[in-house]
Amino acid sequence: MKDIAKLHGYFRSSAAFRVRIALNLKGIPYQTVPHHLRKNEQRAPAYLALNPQGLVPSLEIDGRVLVQSLAIIEYLEETVPSPRLLPEDAGARARVRALAQVVACDIHPIDNLRVLRYLRREMKQDEAAVRAWYNHWIAEGLGALEPMLREEAGTGRFCHGDTPSLADICLFPQVVNSQNFQLDLSPFATVERIYNEALQLPAFERALPQNQSDAE
Amino acid sequence: MKDIAKLHGYFRSSAAFRVRIALNLKGIPYQTVPHHLRKNEQRAPAYLALNPQGLVPSLEIDGRVLVQSLAIIEYLEETVPSPRLLPEDAGARARVRALAQVVACDIHPIDNLRVLRYLRREMKQDEAAVRAWYNHWIAEGLGALEPMLREEAGTGRFCHGDTPSLADICLFPQVVNSQNFQLDLSPFATVERIYNEALQLPAFERALPQNQSDAE
Repeated sequence: MKDIAKLHGYFRSSAAFRVRIALNLKGIPYQTVPHHLRKNEQRAPAYLALNPQGLVPSLEIDGRVLVQSLAIIEYLEETVPSPRLLPEDAGARARVRALAQVVACDIHPIDNLRVLRYLRREMKQDEAAVRAWYNHWIAEGLGALEPMLREEAGTGRFCHGDTPSLADICLFPQVVNSQNFQLDLSPFATVERIYNEALQLPAFERALPQNQSDAE
Repeated sequence: MKDIAKLHGYFRSSAAFRVRIALNLKGIPYQTVPHHLRKNEQRAPAYLALNPQGLVPSLEIDGRVLVQSLAIIEYLEETVPSPRLLPEDAGARARVRALAQVVACDIHPIDNLRVLRYLRREMKQDEAAVRAWYNHWIAEGLGALEPMLREEAGTGRFCHGDTPSLADICLFPQVVNSQNFQLDLSPFATVERIYNEALQLPAFERALPQNQSDAE
């Protein structure tokens, strides 16, 4: 019998949140191992031995330790192909990955906890400046996603077609995260519509930060 | 006859640089269409019609427009499988993608031109503070990559095995880019060794910023 997968994460981490959704969509059972990022538990020696980068998530599965949320999800897609998180056609796959990467490469890294912490501590920025920063980069990214989602033929009920894909898996946690600084979503109507579609699915709903065992 | 691919880029863009290396490794002929980022040419209406995000690169290929460098490279891998940029085994593929994403998600987005510009203009940071920021995030990222590359069995002449992969395609431009702020590479000996290996390959050497038609 295979060992159950172990997801090292944190309830508020958007990257761990993506992996939770993917595991839920694929129906892969897993245990969560929380690491409290605000207490720097991800820098404890035992965790660094597992993931030298000292970030979450890491996934222990099939006797391996996987890191980086998108790499983990691509692995799940390759090893548990159904239900698909990427379409079959190469052009459509490129679209889904690009939508995912607008969030994963161009919004989330600039707005995550360690960066905001640097702005506060090393750059002595006040909360208004941190909030302006945060909302600037989300608005830039969602402002790019909105016309892509609104105007491109590939969009359906979800970011691509009528079933959730890697793109929704990245978008949904970013929208949830944007609520931390009360971002006004009204300019991003298609993004908001897709967020609400995803919220109806148990795989997304169960992955919400407030539904994790380490939620505060 | 197929139209020749068109790469919309900028000589200094690390993300465009990745796509140049991948096209060179795959032997796919392409023309470059430069957009001067310091003059904000990527925000011109004609370019926004092609790529609503207003970032480079975009690749016109096979009658499509592709955006986001990693999505583009995965497309090239799927449509022109040889030479491989990802290994065959799912676990090894996850490792290569994770190494690539340490650069593409955790270093580059925080240190690119638009972010440094925000620090200077909106946050009124001086050059010393911008340089400290820049080197902090590169050192964090390379500090994570170094033990992964030094200690994991998958590493060979290149990041994974003895042929260049997606991981080298991301790492090489980041190392070149790090020279802008004179980062000391000596703590990252394995990174530096792999950079020097890649520099020997024409596919990497031809993709260098200074070898582009729009280089200054």
